[in-house]
Amino acid sequence: MTRRAVSDRTGATRRQLLIGGAVAGLGAAAAVGADLMMNRADAAADAAAPPMNGEQMVPFHGVHQAGIDTAAQAHGVFLGLDLHDGVEREALVRLMRILTDDAARLTQGKPALADSEPELAGAPARLTVTFGFGPGFVARAAGAAPAWLAPLPVFGIDRLQPELSDGDLLIQVAGDDPLTVAHAVRMLLKDARGFAALRWTQRGFRRAYGTERPGTTMRNLFGQVDGTANPEPGTRDFDRVVWSDDGWMAGGTGVVIRRIRMDLDKWDRLDRGGRESSVGRTLANGAPLTGSEEFDEPDFEATTSIGFPVIPAFAHIRRARGEDGERIFRRAYNYDEHPDGEGVSESGLIFVAFQADVEKQFTPMQRRLDQLDLLNEWTTPIGSAVFAVPPGCAVGGYIGETLLGS
Amino acid sequence: MTRRAVSDRTGATRRQLLIGGAVAGLGAAAAVGADLMMNRADAAADAAAPPMNGEQMVPFHGVHQAGIDTAAQAHGVFLGLDLHDGVEREALVRLMRILTDDAARLTQGKPALADSEPELAGAPARLTVTFGFGPGFVARAAGAAPAWLAPLPVFGIDRLQPELSDGDLLIQVAGDDPLTVAHAVRMLLKDARGFAALRWTQRGFRRAYGTERPGTTMRNLFGQVDGTANPEPGTRDFDRVVWSDDGWMAGGTGVVIRRIRMDLDKWDRLDRGGRESSVGRTLANGAPLTGSEEFDEPDFEATTSIGFPVIPAFAHIRRARGEDGERIFRRAYNYDEHPDGEGVSESGLIFVAFQADVEKQFTPMQRRLDQLDLLNEWTTPIGSAVFAVPPGCAVGGYIGETLLGS
Ligand code: HEM
Ligand code: HEM
Repeated sequence: MTRRAVSDRTGATRRQLLIGGAVAGLGAAAAVGADLMMNRADAAADAAAPPMNGEQMVPFHGVHQAGIDTAAQAHGVFLGLDLHDGVEREALVRLMRILTDDAARLTQGKPALADSEPELAGAPARLTVTFGFGPGFVARAAGAAPAWLAPLPVFGIDRLQPELSDGDLLIQVAGDDPLTVAHAVRMLLKDARGFAALRWTQRGFRRAYGTERPGTTMRNLFGQVDGTANPEPGTRDFDRVVWSDDGWMAGGTGVVIRRIRMDLDKWDRLDRGGRESSVGRTLANGAPLTGSEEFDEPDFEATTSIGFPVIPAFAHIRRARGEDGERIFRRAYNYDEHPDGEGVSESGLIFVAFQADVEKQFTPMQRRLDQLDLLNEWTTPIGSAVFAVPPGCAVGGYIGETLLGS
Repeated sequence: MTRRAVSDRTGATRRQLLIGGAVAGLGAAAAVGADLMMNRADAAADAAAPPMNGEQMVPFHGVHQAGIDTAAQAHGVFLGLDLHDGVEREALVRLMRILTDDAARLTQGKPALADSEPELAGAPARLTVTFGFGPGFVARAAGAAPAWLAPLPVFGIDRLQPELSDGDLLIQVAGDDPLTVAHAVRMLLKDARGFAALRWTQRGFRRAYGTERPGTTMRNLFGQVDGTANPEPGTRDFDRVVWSDDGWMAGGTGVVIRRIRMDLDKWDRLDRGGRESSVGRTLANGAPLTGSEEFDEPDFEATTSIGFPVIPAFAHIRRARGEDGERIFRRAYNYDEHPDGEGVSESGLIFVAFQADVEKQFTPMQRRLDQLDLLNEWTTPIGSAVFAVPPGCAVGGYIGETLLGS
């Protein structure tokens, strides 16, 4: 076994175990396993080595699809596809059987069937693949579409670009490793291309694995703590907000994906007090302006000594907070692209919201925010899409079988 | 202190320490520090928690700039800028003083001066910022340009796009956390915009922190182990290949950045044997076709039983391997973008090579590969740029002072 020292500028010298003859000839997955064993055996002797995240797997099969109640991974890629002409019910069954098989393998660290780069499949790093059906998909399946499965109403704040909106099929690929995510995206798109063309791609990120403790609420590119007042996966509250119990959608959910530009330059001209009152929470730790810790309940009745509400009437969290029925689960990603022209940033949020009924839960909230939300000064929706996310499936089944199965 | 359980589909339940009153009101950096302390205190009790990578720092000041001999981070963003008309020597001094100050702070986990989102600066995650000067920059500085500081000669394989090539100033921002990298890019571009406009952006990735053991050679999107025969940072060999000892460039180096499209669809039509002989190494572990382990020396003389060379005449590693003087240090990143039209992938390599003398070390190699290299069947250079990377600086100094200082 060869060893060589790798030194970096932090001054730490890390011993590196090169996997040599002992595992040569084994597949990539086996090599990762062997690497892991060596890692464990070596852990005591090598305090500087991080524990392996690469072999962490999120189960694919289950009542619900993965990638919804899964603690959000560092990288999220969202693919919107348009079905080719003539792809009808039977072809959809074939398509979803193939894509399900790909997802079931890749998320468990195994190459796809006829994987062209099997070496890239060995480190799942919590990879999940989640499918959603647009109105066109359900129509071709000759299924009963949920009443809410349609483009959202037009809002005054919208500046939607068709090439970033809508689509027949959503594939959400998320994982902690960008190479694994890229490989999964390619395998899925290769297998889909006989049936559908890629309409849009959105790539987003959150903190990397290891940057912060698991469970830390993410920050968006405005620097805000984003996601605090969210139902918590694993609770009854979450289940009630997210999972549908309606026909073929039972165990599934609805997803709204909105690409929202954030004007960082304009935001940067606002002072700290202005930024905090636009949302109703502090920048330092996301506490409500009426509290001191992130998870303190906001007090919407509290007033200042001169009688103004501490959380202003125009504040995003006051406007967004709905009646009990109007709640959503947000699982957003930041995006940051090459700016056109003179700009310095082309950045924003891939806003992703899951809820059982889009019309009842999401739309009233978005309508309220459209009417009044100071955050609108710095944010512009430029893409929008709605999908029905079917339930999960058991081993041997496929995603969409409750819609497409005879 | 509030605790709540976060469960994910892996079945692991991780206790989450929410940073509450104890650190409320402290800045982001302090909060990260506190988080780290808690992490340490909690580590014994919480085996599932990863060690924090977020606070890892690469020293900014030194003889050489960081980001060259630094073990490559997961994310690399490359920015090519064009100086505005009228930006001459004096303005360049101001520009480089400001950018140096930004880089010195941000890489050490501190907000930039007048940082507009200081909360995003607290987790450096091995952030490095590296500057390079194009021919236009050195001309405006009225400096003596190294003889090699010019666009590369035109090669037959090239299909260069001007909007992905050249530029006066390079800023390479690399780190293990994508949010930290995005924030640093923005701060640097905001401070540069009075002096220069963004010409191109290239975003690339390698394996995430924690996916594999540190020091594992990366794989590219062809699935190949890429980077094996590279000088090793910290060795005399590396120093000889990389660092210049010439005038204001002493302690600096030259960098070639080529955006090389990889035609994954065409590659996938090639069988495994064909792929391996196109390079001269195996896909499984990157061993030369004449050996069994990654770091085995290739035997270019070995022949098959019927007399053909085992590593073919057209193999990339045979063609790339130069005389002793012709060596380079490669530090590439993968890229994967939204494909135009009918394609499934728009992917490739941000090929990044450091060497003391581009003309003596890089160009003969590229010329040989231009003439014969089977890999050319599947790869196309679409962008190309050359920069002089000045040496590092001490505290109080600035990058470029050896060129710009009186
Ligand atoms: C770029 C656009 C947006 C930004 C930057 C943003 C940011 C934030 C922030 C910082 C918070 C406070 C912390 C938290 O609870 O997460 C928040 C809360 C919230 N946002 Fe947004 N948001 C955006 C768009 C939206 C949209 C489009 C919706 C839905 C239509 C929405 C719904 C909510 C809800 C429901 C809450 C929780 C309110 C509560 O009950 O306290 N947000 N958002
Ligand atoms: C997308 C384009 C390219 C791909 C996919 C690629 C891939 C590879 C692979 C798989 C290896 C073997 C493992 C290793 O030592 O890293 C290799 C080696 C090498 N490549 Fe490339 N390469 C590309 C472009 C280039 C270019 C443009 C140059 C320089 C002009 C270059 C120079 C080298 C060198 C010097 C070696 C080491 C040869 C030796 O064994 O001494 N490569 N490359």
